[in-house]
Amino acid sequence: MPLPERRYVITFGCPDRTGIVAGISSFLAEHGGWIVEAAYHTDQDTNWFFTRQEVRADSLRFDVAELRARFTGVARELGAHPGSWRVTDTAERRRVVILVSKEGHCLYDLLGRVASRELDVDVAAVIGNHADLAGITRAHGIPFHHVPFPVSDPEGKQAAFAQLRQLVDAHDPHAVVLARFMQVLPVELCAAWSGRALNIHHSFLPSFIGARPYHQAHNRGVKLVGATCHYVTAELDEGPIVEQDVIRVDHTDSIPDMVRKGRDIEKVVLARGLRWHLEDRVLLHGNRTVIF
Amino acid sequence: MPLPERRYVITFGCPDRTGIVAGISSFLAEHGGWIVEAAYHTDQDTNWFFTRQEVRADSLRFDVAELRARFTGVARELGAHPGSWRVTDTAERRRVVILVSKEGHCLYDLLGRVASRELDVDVAAVIGNHADLAGITRAHGIPFHHVPFPVSDPEGKQAAFAQLRQLVDAHDPHAVVLARFMQVLPVELCAAWSGRALNIHHSFLPSFIGARPYHQAHNRGVKLVGATCHYVTAELDEGPIVEQDVIRVDHTDSIPDMVRKGRDIEKVVLARGLRWHLEDRVLLHGNRTVIF
Amino acid sequence: MPLPERRYVITFGCPDRTGIVAGISSFLAEHGGWIVEAAYHTDQDTNWFFTRQEVRADSLRFDVAELRARFTGVARELGAHPGSWRVTDTAERRRVVILVSKEGHCLYDLLGRVASRELDVDVAAVIGNHADLAGITRAHGIPFHHVPFPVSDPEGKQAAFAQLRQLVDAHDPHAVVLARFMQVLPVELCAAWSGRALNIHHSFLPSFIGARPYHQAHNRGVKLVGATCHYVTAELDEGPIVEQDVIRVDHTDSIPDMVRKGRDIEKVVLARGLRWHLEDRVLLHGNRTVIF
Amino acid sequence: MPLPERRYVITFGCPDRTGIVAGISSFLAEHGGWIVEAAYHTDQDTNWFFTRQEVRADSLRFDVAELRARFTGVARELGAHPGSWRVTDTAERRRVVILVSKEGHCLYDLLGRVASRELDVDVAAVIGNHADLAGITRAHGIPFHHVPFPVSDPEGKQAAFAQLRQLVDAHDPHAVVLARFMQVLPVELCAAWSGRALNIHHSFLPSFIGARPYHQAHNRGVKLVGATCHYVTAELDEGPIVEQDVIRVDHTDSIPDMVRKGRDIEKVVLARGLRWHLEDRVLLHGNRTVIF
Repeated sequence: MPLPERRYVITFGCPDRTGIVAGISSFLAEHGGWIVEAAYHTDQDTNWFFTRQEVRADSLRFDVAELRARFTGVARELGAHPGSWRVTDTAERRRVVILVSKEGHCLYDLLGRVASRELDVDVAAVIGNHADLAGITRAHGIPFHHVPFPVSDPEGKQAAFAQLRQLVDAHDPHAVVLARFMQVLPVELCAAWSGRALNIHHSFLPSFIGARPYHQAHNRGVKLVGATCHYVTAELDEGPIVEQDVIRVDHTDSIPDMVRKGRDIEKVVLARGLRWHLEDRVLLHGNRTVIF
Repeated sequence: MPLPERRYVITFGCPDRTGIVAGISSFLAEHGGWIVEAAYHTDQDTNWFFTRQEVRADSLRFDVAELRARFTGVARELGAHPGSWRVTDTAERRRVVILVSKEGHCLYDLLGRVASRELDVDVAAVIGNHADLAGITRAHGIPFHHVPFPVSDPEGKQAAFAQLRQLVDAHDPHAVVLARFMQVLPVELCAAWSGRALNIHHSFLPSFIGARPYHQAHNRGVKLVGATCHYVTAELDEGPIVEQDVIRVDHTDSIPDMVRKGRDIEKVVLARGLRWHLEDRVLLHGNRTVIF
Repeated sequence: MPLPERRYVITFGCPDRTGIVAGISSFLAEHGGWIVEAAYHTDQDTNWFFTRQEVRADSLRFDVAELRARFTGVARELGAHPGSWRVTDTAERRRVVILVSKEGHCLYDLLGRVASRELDVDVAAVIGNHADLAGITRAHGIPFHHVPFPVSDPEGKQAAFAQLRQLVDAHDPHAVVLARFMQVLPVELCAAWSGRALNIHHSFLPSFIGARPYHQAHNRGVKLVGATCHYVTAELDEGPIVEQDVIRVDHTDSIPDMVRKGRDIEKVVLARGLRWHLEDRVLLHGNRTVIF
Repeated sequence: MPLPERRYVITFGCPDRTGIVAGISSFLAEHGGWIVEAAYHTDQDTNWFFTRQEVRADSLRFDVAELRARFTGVARELGAHPGSWRVTDTAERRRVVILVSKEGHCLYDLLGRVASRELDVDVAAVIGNHADLAGITRAHGIPFHHVPFPVSDPEGKQAAFAQLRQLVDAHDPHAVVLARFMQVLPVELCAAWSGRALNIHHSFLPSFIGARPYHQAHNRGVKLVGATCHYVTAELDEGPIVEQDVIRVDHTDSIPDMVRKGRDIEKVVLARGLRWHLEDRVLLHGNRTVIF
């Protein structure tokens, strides 16, 4: 596969009014910016405008820092808050840290995608509260850290989270992936990694929040099981949803069968959500997401 | 399309043990019974055995009443309760009563299926708490009854339910279909039509129980909306699920868009559920269903 | 449901270069045009740019004819051929003519959608080479014309097509829908209705081109059957694909079962394709389509 | 997860007539055989009967060899050919050999499933015509053999196939998995591995037979891409289909995007097909399959 060409990605949100598209596109056109991909959306309920634009890096006469500096003026004129737009450079490799427990299907899947370059990112580290997945991680040439989380020991748990945070933050990752990590993040970590921590929940949220969703699904007799990739927030399983999918089950499926079938969905839903996040395709809008 | 051949359908459930299949199939074989379709299932959690068998009517030397009489002995020997098995005759045309309000998509869909003989049943009557759908119903040659349900008038409402019950029960229908009927059935009607009243709920239950599920779905930012066909029980939206399906939505979909997309799912989910019910393919198992 | 607000829809294609988005959006902004929905796409293989924009009619100081006149200059400057862009007005009701044979499921479905205002169009006429569907059509208050197509009588057939064309063209419809119309259109009709004639093919094209696709599917032992909505061209079943979907089948499904299951897909695929076409969401690109 | 209980699996096919189910189930009941799972199917077109039964090993008083010996008489009485039934023992671990080229997504996926015990089989060897995937294979503790296939050297190629055959046959595997193996097997290997060689084709067959199916799909402008798991036969891509699935694509998807999305389908379709094959759930019926 040829190397993808270098691009600058602008994501932007502001209250809707006439002239926003013209403002952004005229600014880019003025500097020769070649828009390769563009998406726009207006949320009618809140009258909020969103856009994402990919510009060929070689079409502009300046670098990404200069683009960012110049775009600041455009954004200010259009009434956008400083935190509601970003300019990123696809040449900056994305760094990812993955958190795991014992169940390996999501980790195996992500490592396979990275190894085959389908997901072209740096996995800076894998951190597990159990050591079961150390072997496969290291076989891929990736550091594995074991941070045990003691049961019924609040202080020990707090210390473990502190260590986890240190290990993660050392890499300043673009994404912290909870790949079936079975610990609930404390509020301060949710805040520290806000908009960067992606969880895969093994149900079609908001059904079956909390523990053992496949057991809940089996008891309720549903005909489909699902998975949800969402941003982690302080409210358990309530964060903005990035992606969901389902798979059919029937009366012949025991709980272990549902678990097995559900895993195939968990893997693809997490992989899709992570890709979109790393490509700056996910824009937050309150507790909802715009996926460009 | 050729007329489907006449068949007797046996549905049967009892505690699992060895020899059940042998018992039933030997009984049938002894009388020359040609099994055209057979399905078996054992629920491992409850150790309960289920089967459904279709036998060619012309392969037996006696009629359905005699089959029923003779099978009583087999069932007793196998330890089945009298209420846990049935023998039906496909030559008996299925009678259906449909309950509606103002929204017509499910009714239009069912009438189209009946008119094109895809669903080969007698729609004995359509009953609406509004009269909006009288015209199309009568255009199909089917009686329409308008039973208004007064708001804020408990006695008037009770009288309306009594009239509804009388109109429905006059046909002794195999199925009472709540095709987006917007009234909650009182406990006594749930009991009277137990195992025969099918509702279509416009969400992927157990998500978004109750009113305005598409609004709830939009607020939660889900990426799929769904529909659920379930038996009506006294617990609102909690009855045994017969069928479910979902359709993808995204940030560009307003609530009316979700409503529109969801309708396509409501229609097929209800039509599938109704077909399976009328073909005696749905066996109840507590609050779950076995679909053969 | 509230009336949707009046909008002007611009669809536009030209060779890609920098400044197109800026050109169009600046033109609109200059006149106060409020863009409510916008989509852009560049085909990398052919370097062709596509866009579709919805503008609130009340945001512009002039009517659609004036918008069209003024946009001509913009289009010319951007290097677009006169035939590669259009400006339409959502206030102009869409007229549809539907062609049928004996099988009614797609017709029933479309009429139900029209009657419930989900598809808010005028069905100007239904024309059948058989009269089977006259009754339901007229029950909806829509004229039905019976145009018999004689077998083994080339001249009679030619005359029938001439009559068909006259009946259709009398309404100058935005769409001619072949809703399981079992006659192959002659080349001159394909040309006359180019880009307006939508067919529903009962297979997942390009599998099972031609006659009896469900029989072909059954023989090949496929595990999914599908349907394809495509524009009619002189090459049978080879026109640009607008929409496709599939449904799972298994070894228990006979050919009639496949036919029945497939119909549910045919209906939704045709309804989606027709909606997109009538909303000017389908842009042709050689034998492919861009769906905005 | 608890160890699954040991079971004997009977698969059986013969011309349909009355008394088959009774014959088999009475035989089992007579010896105390506890049927844990049973499925029956009659193909109406060919009047052929199929069944698959799982019996708890500890419910019988004899071992699998004795069961096989005794069942021979039952099968003969019911008119089954010796080759049309089998009795297997789930205690015999399934051996699999995987053939690969350069593309690793299916191999990564299978190895992940094996490592996490989701697919509880022995991968006896991985054989590649390129060495790219040697590392990951050996990291999983599995032998990798590199068998180069020379281009434009018929004799060299023949020798390579001979070596391949020797390496595979040394393990007498239950399944030979062509996990995106890019060499067409010669007729003699198709025959030698008949009913055991599973291929994953990267299209929704019978669409896009042969090379570069995603390119063909892109050119045709389809709205879904798919994958097909089928048995290998001498007719390229024409063998009995075991499983298929599809994923939605649109005009924004380039060929590399289609390749990437399609891989997610290839992986699950192959994994499902392989599981069913190894659990003796796939019965051949001419060029079609019955999946129990």
